[in-house]
Amino acid sequence: MAGKTKEMVESWSFLDTAESNFRPLVVIELAKGTKEETIEWFTKRIVDKKANGGAQLLIKPLVTENGVENIYLVGASHLRLLLGAETVGLVKECSDNSMRTFTYSSRKTFKHFADDNHNFLTMAECQYIIKHELENLRAKDEKMIPGYPQAKLYPGKSIDDIRCYFGETIALYFGFLEYFTFALIPMAVIGIPYYMFAWEDYDKYVMFATFNLLWSTVILEVWKRICAILTYRWGTLLMKRQFEEPRPGFHGVLGINPVTGREEPVYSSIKRQLRIYLVSLPFVCLCLYFSLYVMMIYFDLEQWALDYHKENESNFSSLMLYVPSIIYAVVIEIMNRIYRYAAEFLTSWENHRLESSYQNHLILKVLVFNFLNCFASLFYIAFVLFDMKLLRQSLATLLITSQILNQFAESLLPYWLQKRYNRRMKKRMCSKKTDTDLSLAEQVNMEKEMGTYLGTFDDYLELFLQFGYVSLFSCVYPLAAVFAVLNNITEIYSDALKMCRVYKRPFAEPTANIGVWQLAFETMSVISVVTNCILIGMSPEVDALFPDSKMDLVLTVALVEHLLLAIKFIMAFVIPDKPRDIQMKLAKLEFESLEALKQQQMQLAAESLKE
Amino acid sequence: MAGKTKEMVESWSFLDTAESNFRPLVVIELAKGTKEETIEWFTKRIVDKKANGGAQLLIKPLVTENGVENIYLVGASHLRLLLGAETVGLVKECSDNSMRTFTYSSRKTFKHFADDNHNFLTMAECQYIIKHELENLRAKDEKMIPGYPQAKLYPGKSIDDIRCYFGETIALYFGFLEYFTFALIPMAVIGIPYYMFAWEDYDKYVMFATFNLLWSTVILEVWKRICAILTYRWGTLLMKRQFEEPRPGFHGVLGINPVTGREEPVYSSIKRQLRIYLVSLPFVCLCLYFSLYVMMIYFDLEQWALDYHKENESNFSSLMLYVPSIIYAVVIEIMNRIYRYAAEFLTSWENHRLESSYQNHLILKVLVFNFLNCFASLFYIAFVLFDMKLLRQSLATLLITSQILNQFAESLLPYWLQKRYNRRMKKRMCSKKTDTDLSLAEQVNMEKEMGTYLGTFDDYLELFLQFGYVSLFSCVYPLAAVFAVLNNITEIYSDALKMCRVYKRPFAEPTANIGVWQLAFETMSVISVVTNCILIGMSPEVDALFPDSKMDLVLTVALVEHLLLAIKFIMAFVIPDKPRDIQMKLAKLEFESLEALKQQQMQLAAESLKE
Repeated sequence: MAGKTKEMVESWSFLDTAESNFRPLVVIELAKGTKEETIEWFTKRIVDKKANGGAQLLIKPLVTENGVENIYLVGASHLRLLLGAETVGLVKECSDNSMRTFTYSSRKTFKHFADDNHNFLTMAECQYIIKHELENLRAKDEKMIPGYPQAKLYPGKSIDDIRCYFGETIALYFGFLEYFTFALIPMAVIGIPYYMFAWEDYDKYVMFATFNLLWSTVILEVWKRICAILTYRWGTLLMKRQFEEPRPGFHGVLGINPVTGREEPVYSSIKRQLRIYLVSLPFVCLCLYFSLYVMMIYFDLEQWALDYHKENESNFSSLMLYVPSIIYAVVIEIMNRIYRYAAEFLTSWENHRLESSYQNHLILKVLVFNFLNCFASLFYIAFVLFDMKLLRQSLATLLITSQILNQFAESLLPYWLQKRYNRRMKKRMCSKKTDTDLSLAEQVNMEKEMGTYLGTFDDYLELFLQFGYVSLFSCVYPLAAVFAVLNNITEIYSDALKMCRVYKRPFAEPTANIGVWQLAFETMSVISVVTNCILIGMSPEVDALFPDSKMDLVLTVALVEHLLLAIKFIMAFVIPDKPRDIQMKLAKLEFESLEALKQQQMQLAAESLKE
Repeated sequence: MAGKTKEMVESWSFLDTAESNFRPLVVIELAKGTKEETIEWFTKRIVDKKANGGAQLLIKPLVTENGVENIYLVGASHLRLLLGAETVGLVKECSDNSMRTFTYSSRKTFKHFADDNHNFLTMAECQYIIKHELENLRAKDEKMIPGYPQAKLYPGKSIDDIRCYFGETIALYFGFLEYFTFALIPMAVIGIPYYMFAWEDYDKYVMFATFNLLWSTVILEVWKRICAILTYRWGTLLMKRQFEEPRPGFHGVLGINPVTGREEPVYSSIKRQLRIYLVSLPFVCLCLYFSLYVMMIYFDLEQWALDYHKENESNFSSLMLYVPSIIYAVVIEIMNRIYRYAAEFLTSWENHRLESSYQNHLILKVLVFNFLNCFASLFYIAFVLFDMKLLRQSLATLLITSQILNQFAESLLPYWLQKRYNRRMKKRMCSKKTDTDLSLAEQVNMEKEMGTYLGTFDDYLELFLQFGYVSLFSCVYPLAAVFAVLNNITEIYSDALKMCRVYKRPFAEPTANIGVWQLAFETMSVISVVTNCILIGMSPEVDALFPDSKMDLVLTVALVEHLLLAIKFIMAFVIPDKPRDIQMKLAKLEFESLEALKQQQMQLAAESLKE
């Protein structure tokens, strides 16, 4: 068996003219019991010429001291990568600073291009190209085992560095996190004096809330512009999206797809609708009911703690006042996580054909539950119990507890587990070397046991809920922004740690914006206008301004709320989504391509008329 | 001079192999004093080969009994039109019922194509192609006098017929008008019993208003789908938009356009902003103030009429009650029209570079003023005077008077003037023939004095204001929908009359949707949720339901309003903008073009690797 593999290695080597040039880009692990013939067939498919239906990539088995394992390193020649870049439609910067779709024939016009410059394509781009080629193989026979990438670890420095290493989706998440943290700073700075000087006048709260509402609209609009600047420079703003293939988990009876005309699994839309409305929807409603039930238990606990404090006034009893909120915050986190798995299972069972449709249904399910689970108790305290003191205390406890739990569960715990595992592994390998000079084989072996990063979903969700805590009741607890800023500064580091040290390096995925999360944040900011207006209207100070008629108070609040909402929508409409210079560059590009088309057609017309 | 022209006619004839085939498509009238050399040069440019920078069209002077006038008929050979269709990117139906961009080389695959079928392109498409070619000539030397089309008159039968004759913009207006009228019928049908049985219970009004609000959301969403169906069939949904050239009226000092790199007039954006904010904005505010001032005079008149009626109760005095409203309605119409001219002048003076930017600024100016001018008095009566009886009376008078005035001023008056002019013309020409057998020369001469149709702006505006009358106060006056339906049925005929008989035939303009009007109608439907909720809350019947606390009443109304708004937004989000089959067809098209691209690139890659 070892002999056979050696022979194969030799037969591949002719493809790679300079063996030293082989840069492993993706690591593929085949299932343990994979048959010899399958391996041979599979590796042949990978190295085979395009014309023969292969991927024309390079592949090498990973040789460790235990001999050849079922682990393969996949790479590609520089030329192959450049042609692949054209196939996936990468957009790169030209020598004249404009962004253009890369083609092999026009390669000389691109900035930093040289035939011997192997850094022209970023590592993330190379991996995306290889993943695309491997998936195209899979689309033909559906037998390939999905690969996972080899992670070369270093902490992120700037968004552009992150983008080169992890690709655009993750870079955009870090960009958003960083931007959002900076954008919260003004709110935090204005919030601090409220705590320090115990400002409790209504006009100061009104000012803070108004600032908060307009500010949250502005930051969301400005983010769109920053996002356009970033993705223009990265080329993804201009990149044509690929045709969406069915997601890997999709199954059904074989039929003809009406769009592509190919024979592929087909699943009736009516069955899916039935599953959604008869199973998923009732399940979600049940979960929401359960969440509300837990909330009522929390209020019982709260009452009990209050009674206990009244009976035996002591330091211990006043500490006890915080216990129900902390327990509730922990329960909320646990429920969110369990529900997340249930939602994933259900959405997967709904059998959506496209990944985008799967994602939309999953996000909708999770968002609705998380929103209710996290904020229902606060809404109840604010608008049913009218207890501003409890609201402030509960908000603070929920916010801080959830932040601590999240940081712990998402990064520190997995990091510690990973560290322990690594130490054990190293001991087993009897290697006394430090991290940095691990051989490739040792590193691959160490990293293959790492968890898989499941995408930016949970990270965005965390920011979304944080945005809710900060903006929904901002006029009651201005300090929330301060905690959010502090959390986000550590979050940047713990997320970097998580992605570099805890999980296998995820495949790069080009993207032009943060997608549905933009809409989610905007919806939250609309809801926060309503809640803040009501809270201000309910404050005793505002109440005192209308001593004669509560009617006038309510009417005034309603009027102000409608005005604020109108201003929000007008602002969102007036602020352009792309900065002027990006608009100009896009217009220039459009003009050039239309001009080229026109020239071509005029030539054609002239020739046809001549005939 | 006549000899020279004859010679020119002869020299052109070789282009048109069969003289009988010459179909005049566009009529160009040159300015009276145009020099002989200019005419010669200009006609040469039109017939010259593409390769020499000409338009390669056919042109013939119009010969009447008065000899050769400065009027020219422009046509094109069938082949030329087909190549032009490719240049402008027309999308036509293939034999397999899919829509594809027309190319000359693939012409045989298109439905109804035959080399001798000269009806393959609709007349509107032919005119659009010729206009495009003539404008491309202009773009080079800016000397051409814009042409106007020759109108062959017949009343529209179906939207598809209208589209073939007038092009997509006007067809879509008629489509919207027809759809909107049908969509109003349920509201009108439900509204009638309110008048007949004098239903004044609050629950019936609430039901009507709720139905109205949801219905108006549904009809606007469904219109988007119908619009997609229509424009998919017409090919404009798929048509790539052309690069926008500067509008004809734009002027400035010569400079380099940063987008196109061409030398063309450049006008500083700061100057334009100054003109907008320092002149236009104050002017609009002044007009708004004046409009409110006129409104207060109307209320004085109203009061006077009421006093008069109280003093001398008679039939005459009760008729007098309606006079102030009628006068006010007439004044509103006059003010709207005067303001329209002022807004056009100002927007033109702001010197926008692109037609789209000019249109947006004009529409914004006109919409704001028209909205306030028409509805301010109604808002004042409803929410300041709280006089529901006066509101109903005023609404009815305004609606009916404005409809009558509009129909008269827009179609009947110009039609009558035109008719009188035509009769005089015919008498002068001593021709006793009927309309149908006028010679081409006579018809051109008759039609060249017709007014120019200024686009669908005024027609949409009229529908927009009508939608306001129907929906803003629907729970007070359910009969408004009935009048709207009646008006729109006659409007369809009077608009057809206007476009066919009163104005010169406008150039066809491809379009994929009704543009900014969709947004305007949606905004109006959001505002109407607010007004209707307040009106219902103010009704004595609802008031009686909350005898103890006016607070509860206001809170309930606010809650219902927010719920309705939320439902509206969710509905707008959930209802897909394109029907499923159109989505499938678009996906299929996208798949095919991406697949073709991929094939091409894979071939290229294989070839490059072979080298």
